[in-house]
Amino acid sequence: MAGTDRSQDLTFRASPAIILCEPQLGENIGTAARAMANFGLWDLRVVNPRDGWPNERAVAAASRADHVIDKVRVFATLEEAIADLSLVFATTARRRDVQKPVLGPEEGAQRMISHIAGGAGAGLLFGRERWGLYNEEVSLADAIVTFPVEAAFASLNIAQAVLLMSYEWRRQFDTGEVLPFTGGLDAAAPRSELMGLFGHLEETLDRTGFFKTADKRPTMVENLRAVFARAGLSSQEIRTLRGVISSIDRMHERQRPDRAPPDGDS
Amino acid sequence: MAGTDRSQDLTFRASPAIILCEPQLGENIGTAARAMANFGLWDLRVVNPRDGWPNERAVAAASRADHVIDKVRVFATLEEAIADLSLVFATTARRRDVQKPVLGPEEGAQRMISHIAGGAGAGLLFGRERWGLYNEEVSLADAIVTFPVEAAFASLNIAQAVLLMSYEWRRQFDTGEVLPFTGGLDAAAPRSELMGLFGHLEETLDRTGFFKTADKRPTMVENLRAVFARAGLSSQEIRTLRGVISSIDRMHERQRPDRAPPDGDS
Repeated sequence: MAGTDRSQDLTFRASPAIILCEPQLGENIGTAARAMANFGLWDLRVVNPRDGWPNERAVAAASRADHVIDKVRVFATLEEAIADLSLVFATTARRRDVQKPVLGPEEGAQRMISHIAGGAGAGLLFGRERWGLYNEEVSLADAIVTFPVEAAFASLNIAQAVLLMSYEWRRQFDTGEVLPFTGGLDAAAPRSELMGLFGHLEETLDRTGFFKTADKRPTMVENLRAVFARAGLSSQEIRTLRGVISSIDRMHERQRPDRAPPDGDS
Repeated sequence: MAGTDRSQDLTFRASPAIILCEPQLGENIGTAARAMANFGLWDLRVVNPRDGWPNERAVAAASRADHVIDKVRVFATLEEAIADLSLVFATTARRRDVQKPVLGPEEGAQRMISHIAGGAGAGLLFGRERWGLYNEEVSLADAIVTFPVEAAFASLNIAQAVLLMSYEWRRQFDTGEVLPFTGGLDAAAPRSELMGLFGHLEETLDRTGFFKTADKRPTMVENLRAVFARAGLSSQEIRTLRGVISSIDRMHERQRPDRAPPDGDS
């Protein structure tokens, strides 16, 4: 989905840190960075990445989320990576034998938003590609966040899990005015123009014998008006539809010597 | 994130169709299938995939979402792929110059849930890797769905866009906020009937010289289709509108000795 507008400024608002624990593949660091960038997160921390840092594959996979990649911080241990944070959630798809509250993404995002609004730091832990997080890592978190996945197909890759949490954060943070563009529709025309369309259409249909019997006419007119009334037509669209009627009607072609030209014909 | 419980049964509940338009890479079909499987979607339709079908790379990338891959249906055209659906949203990250309502993922998912709860079919269109959807494809949709991304970093890959919509659908489906009744509107007609109306109207306009120049035709067709696509026409309304066109057209009155009767005239 192309659509990035490079004329827009990047913003680095206060937002959750994303902490990846011992990722094996640079690609996954890069795709996680890209997912964060989509929803305005930027604080990416990596604990003991298998292939070291910097990592070319991470840069390539980040698809120009350079502002995230450039700020990546690497830590030797998880304890160091979360030292400055006061709210930490561990994401996992598996039930854990640890005494932790389990939250869904919505509640997790809500709690991070409140926490960050109070001026404190919050972060989300994501585990290794194959094994996820160890219980000793989960035990460092305030709570577990898990996703409403199908139990029979629960496995999310790292970038997808990061994407969903970033989306939830952004969705709730910005409630309302968040879409990059809105209102594809031109303003609806004043009702007088819509009535003009109705009059034009109905006059034409009367003349062409569309209404088979007089008693059916009111219902058929209502039904036709309902279609156009609910379409929210703009002035331009009303002009186009009237052009359509005139074009199909072709009154001017229909004039024959044995008939007087109809009123108003041009 | 490991965690799939293979002892659980897969469910094939009524859910939106995902329609990928001309994907170039099999990997993206596979990762889209996996994202669907995470949140319980399974109806994957592919329009004219560049590398054909079946595709080994798609299978590998699906990470055992075989129940989705096995059901994939391939279509030559988008029109065929959506023929049985009566609510279609086009996902895009870019503002389009088409007259369509623009929805966020939440409202898009809500509307699909209500629609499907009423027993009808709904689907989501996703575009090509590099160019997204063409405007003529967007014009077939009832509305546009876009994501609350950063304008400066708006590009989502196909699997991520599919993941977010699948997540939103599941998130809201599970909260059970389905209204006890929905609008007074008759069910929208399947897309095949809407395409029939478009064909009838455009054939008539071609014949009556509505499109002044060939280069303006595509835009004018898109604009006209947008009006009728967003009106949510029922089968009965489509029949009425086709009756309107035929009545105004009055081909049978137009036959003159110096002209052969047009095909299909009655």
